[in-house]
Formats: sequence, structure tokens, C-alpha cells
Amino acid sequence: MTNSRFDVVGIGNAIVDVLTQTDDAFLDQQGLAKGAMTLVDEAQAAKVYDKAGPAIECSGGSAANTIAVMAGLGAKCAFAGKVRNDAFGRIFAHDIQSLGVHFDTAPAEDGPATANCLVLVTPDAQRTMLTYLGASIHLKPADVDLEVIKAAKVTYLEGYLWDPEDAKAAFRTAAQAARAAGREVSLSLSDPFCVDRHRADFLDLIEGHVDILFANEAEIMALYQVDDFDAAVEKVKGHCKVAALTRSEKGSVVVSAAGVEAVKAAPVTQVIDTTGAGDAYAAGFLYGYTRDEDLAACARMGGIAAAEVIAQIGARPETDLKAALALKLRNWDAAD
Amino acid sequence: MTNSRFDVVGIGNAIVDVLTQTDDAFLDQQGLAKGAMTLVDEAQAAKVYDKAGPAIECSGGSAANTIAVMAGLGAKCAFAGKVRNDAFGRIFAHDIQSLGVHFDTAPAEDGPATANCLVLVTPDAQRTMLTYLGASIHLKPADVDLEVIKAAKVTYLEGYLWDPEDAKAAFRTAAQAARAAGREVSLSLSDPFCVDRHRADFLDLIEGHVDILFANEAEIMALYQVDDFDAAVEKVKGHCKVAALTRSEKGSVVVSAAGVEAVKAAPVTQVIDTTGAGDAYAAGFLYGYTRDEDLAACARMGGIAAAEVIAQIGARPETDLKAALALKLRNWDAAD
Repeated sequence: MTNSRFDVVGIGNAIVDVLTQTDDAFLDQQGLAKGAMTLVDEAQAAKVYDKAGPAIECSGGSAANTIAVMAGLGAKCAFAGKVRNDAFGRIFAHDIQSLGVHFDTAPAEDGPATANCLVLVTPDAQRTMLTYLGASIHLKPADVDLEVIKAAKVTYLEGYLWDPEDAKAAFRTAAQAARAAGREVSLSLSDPFCVDRHRADFLDLIEGHVDILFANEAEIMALYQVDDFDAAVEKVKGHCKVAALTRSEKGSVVVSAAGVEAVKAAPVTQVIDTTGAGDAYAAGFLYGYTRDEDLAACARMGGIAAAEVIAQIGARPETDLKAALALKLRNWDAAD
Repeated sequence: MTNSRFDVVGIGNAIVDVLTQTDDAFLDQQGLAKGAMTLVDEAQAAKVYDKAGPAIECSGGSAANTIAVMAGLGAKCAFAGKVRNDAFGRIFAHDIQSLGVHFDTAPAEDGPATANCLVLVTPDAQRTMLTYLGASIHLKPADVDLEVIKAAKVTYLEGYLWDPEDAKAAFRTAAQAARAAGREVSLSLSDPFCVDRHRADFLDLIEGHVDILFANEAEIMALYQVDDFDAAVEKVKGHCKVAALTRSEKGSVVVSAAGVEAVKAAPVTQVIDTTGAGDAYAAGFLYGYTRDEDLAACARMGGIAAAEVIAQIGARPETDLKAALALKLRNWDAAD
């Protein structure tokens, strides 16, 4: 994997997060399923926001978070996703471009507002999300620059991208172009409910179109409709080159032709907000992968990036992640 | 001070902060005076924002922060300030209303956008601010509900409100109505540069129109154009009922008819971002004041609120400030 202008290009919903701290009683009152990402329209989002506490706003989006974290580590990245030319759209573009990420998807000049996600964080650090897809639904194949896809070692796609109707075509176009150029394709399953909504499509994609699959325990079990993690591991074998399966405090399991390898979790001092843990894991993993690290090292890097992100509010690290990664990789070896 | 619907009503610029971490080299490149608040137009603000790193957005404004912190402590508060009916305006209104603050200033339906402040935080926890006043400049006397002023024990005004031309009249109207109703008026000097811009007006106001004055060392010295804090303390004597003068890690000094009392600073574990320290001090102080605490207790409460705010990013505490205040007041006594 040499002569690449980009390490990874991500394609996903371009979202601004609205983060607020709340409690279980509020989730109950609003009839929200804790831990889930629910798609809502603008009115439904406003109804809950009006009753929620003070919030902070920051750029989000699953694949966009992964790309932002990778850029923070020093990787060369690009991103494609649709915002509208409005206040949130300008925030999204500023934040990702200011990290050195190539992002030039033309913003929509009319139609729905830039997507936002109301993230309700409970004291147990769980996040419950209400997503208004807004302008994201207008991402079309023409928005994906195939020259960028061909120039990237890995094209990374979030499962959530399967929700907006038009974006599916963009998703397929990108994946085909990447593979035709001899590049690799990576998919994150995003969320067990997202898997439920698109199971057949995801199974089809993983069968021969995806090289590196990311999923957590709940997502991979939902994909294969089994209630046991080990059964899911058996099912995924042979369907993609690498499956990196995350298990929170139990670490992660990497399934490949070389076998099944379990890697312990990175130490975490304090869990504040689990928003973006999976996104950060994928970032650390792909950072190692595009630098030809072995799969266990990739999994360690993923775990360290996730540990940094869950120790703070929000999905993109405020800390110097590059320094944290170097330090923790050293300590990791020392602890073994 | 009984039979009051509100403890404090604040009047100030209604601003959304755009917070980003930066370094001294960036401030130098942009020709920015470190630690100062500079008024800029939309184009100047955009020029610096475009070159700055990723940011988070949250409600700000000096008096608005004070009111938000007081509301978090359990005080009954109101706020008046002008936003536009746009994305940032809706964020501002949501955040302050969701704290239980009475805020019903009608948003502007056209004209400049909601005010924003680009807050550049350096590793030494100093903040350098670029403020675009936007819709704030349209706060007019008619926007101040005199029934609310009359119903509040204290009307709190930020010095920054003297910058937008029309707001001065609103400022004077509110102060006169408060005093006519037998209520008290409090003024924060906001910033030494703000004092330089409006020295004569502030000196005139303090002479007989202000009961409780808040200023830090630099501001009170700028007001009296002296280069020694003790000289400034001598100058302020007799001009207002109470002057609460903050001195960062040296604590605060309260000047009143009872004399001059120095109160040590509250312990701080880690200074991350000094944005809002003065606003939080005023909140803690006025919380005690409107509960008839003695002035030394008010100063302790101010110091504790400030210590909480500087240990995090942003000007409004993410923590349960009420619990922190109770705990730290107990520890304070134990430590003496």
C-alpha cells in the first residue's frame, strides 16, 4: 500500500452533535430507548431538545469522527458527506478541514438543514442519540470524488450511511471504485438497530465487498441473529479479510485468515461519555493498519484511542492523542 | 430583600462562544493581544476562525454566564439580551431557559446574526477573545421588562453592554428603574480595555448609581488609572456600597463601609481555561448576597464558583456546582 495520497477516505453522514447531560428519568419521560440511535424528524428532535438541559455543540458523525481522530494521529485523510450551507454546516466543515482533512463535498444551498444529533449522556456514561438526518440524505454518487477514492489505501464507510435512501448508491459507487483500483474497503456496522434495518444488504456487502469489518458485540450478534458472541465469531470467519470486533472493557477480538486473536482493553481512569468509542477504535486500528502494523498492534491502537475518547465529553479527543498513543503503547508492552 | 420574584436579573450581550485550543504562536501570527477581548466585525472574525483549530460551541456572554451559574446554584434569575432568530440564537435561548432562567427578550427577525465570541484558549489557560456583537447591538430600552427589574433583588449589568451604542440606554433605563423600586444595581467592569473605552461613563455610574461593583485587579487599576492595587482600593472607597475586587490566585478583596476585607482564593486542582472566572465569581458572590450572607461568605462563595469554572473548558460548570459549593464551604472552614 504505497504511493497513496490518502491513508483513509471516510464517507458518512455529516452531523453536528448537540451534547447534553441527563438522567434515566428524562429518557423514560421521553420514551427513549437508552443506548440506541433513533432517527427522528426535525419536529421530534425539537420536542426533546426543548425539554433537555443546556448543551454544547460540536462536530460529530460516526465516520467523520473516525477520520478526525485519525487526522489527529497524523494520518492523511479525506471525508465526503453532505451539509447544508448554514451555521451547523459551516461548523462541520471548519472542524474537519482545520484538522487537515481533505473535505470538499459541495454543501446543499437549499433543502433540509445540516444534520444534527441530540446526544443524551447519562451518569453511567451511556449515550442515547436522536438523529435528524437533514441535508445528509442528499449525498449522491456524484458527491463522491472517485479520484480521492482511488488515491486512498482504505475507503471507510459507516453503516448509518445506509439510512438515507440516496446515500446507498454513493456507498456502493465508492466501494466498487475502491476495489476496482486495488484498494481496500472497510465498513462499520454502526449500531444494532441499524443492522436490523439493513441486515440483508450488510450480509451481501460483507460477502466479498468488504475487507475490514468493524462491529461491537451487539452489532455482530444482531447481524447473524445469534445471542452468543462466540457463535457470531464463527459466523463471520471467511467472509471478510479482517473483522475487528469490540467488546468494551473486555477488549477486542480480531478475526482473520491467521485465526482469532483477543486483545485486552486499554486502561481507562474514568469513563465520562462513551460517545465515539467505536469510531475512535476504528481510527486507531486503521491508523496502524495503513502503517502495516500487525493486527494485534492495530487492535491495541484502537483500544487506546477509544480509551482516550471515553474519558471526556464528546467523540473527538481534546487531548494530544498522538502523544497519548505513543506513551500508552510503551506502557502496554511494559505491563505485559 | 423579601417578596422578590427574582434574586437577580442580568442584562448583557447574548453571545454564543466558539471555543478552540491554540498556542501563543497562533496569536502572534494573527496579531492578537493575549488575554484581551477585541471587538471585531463578521469578516475579521471569519478570518481568524478559518485558520483556527476545531472548536466547540456553547452559550456564553459575561452577564449571561453569571446568571447561568447562579441558576445552577438554585437562585431565581432572569436575563435580558438580544439574539437573532437563527441557529445560534436558538442555542442561546435554549441553554439559558433550560436552567430555569426567565428569558423572553424577543429575538430579532432580521439584521445581524446572533453574536459570537471566538475564544482562543492557550496552554496556560488564558483566553483571548474576538467578539462579533451581531444582534446584541439591537438591545433597546423597550427590550428590558421593567416589571422584571422591579421584581429582582439585584439588577446585574456587564460593562461590555456599554459597547453597543443602543444598549447604553437600556442599561441606564434598567439601573434607574431598579433604584427607583428600592432594588440594588450591580456592575461588572468586564475587561480593562472596556474600562479604557468607557472610563468617564463608568466613573459617573459608580458615583451613586451602582451598589455592588465587580472588578479584577487590572480593571480597577484601569478605572482609576493607577498602577498599584492598593491605590485603587483607596480610590474606590466610599463610591459604592460594596466593591468586590478579584485577584486570581490571591483571592479577592471586599471594600465596604465596614472596611477592607481580604478573602483567600479557593483551592484549584488544575487550571484548564480561565474563561468565565470573573463571571462565576460574581455568581457565587451574588448568590450569597441575595441570601443575606455576610460579605466574607459571599467572597468565599464567589471564589469557589470561580475555582470550579477554571478547572474545565468553558464558562458554565458541567459539574453539580451546588454540591461543590456546599462541600467546599465545609472544607474551607475545616482548613482554617
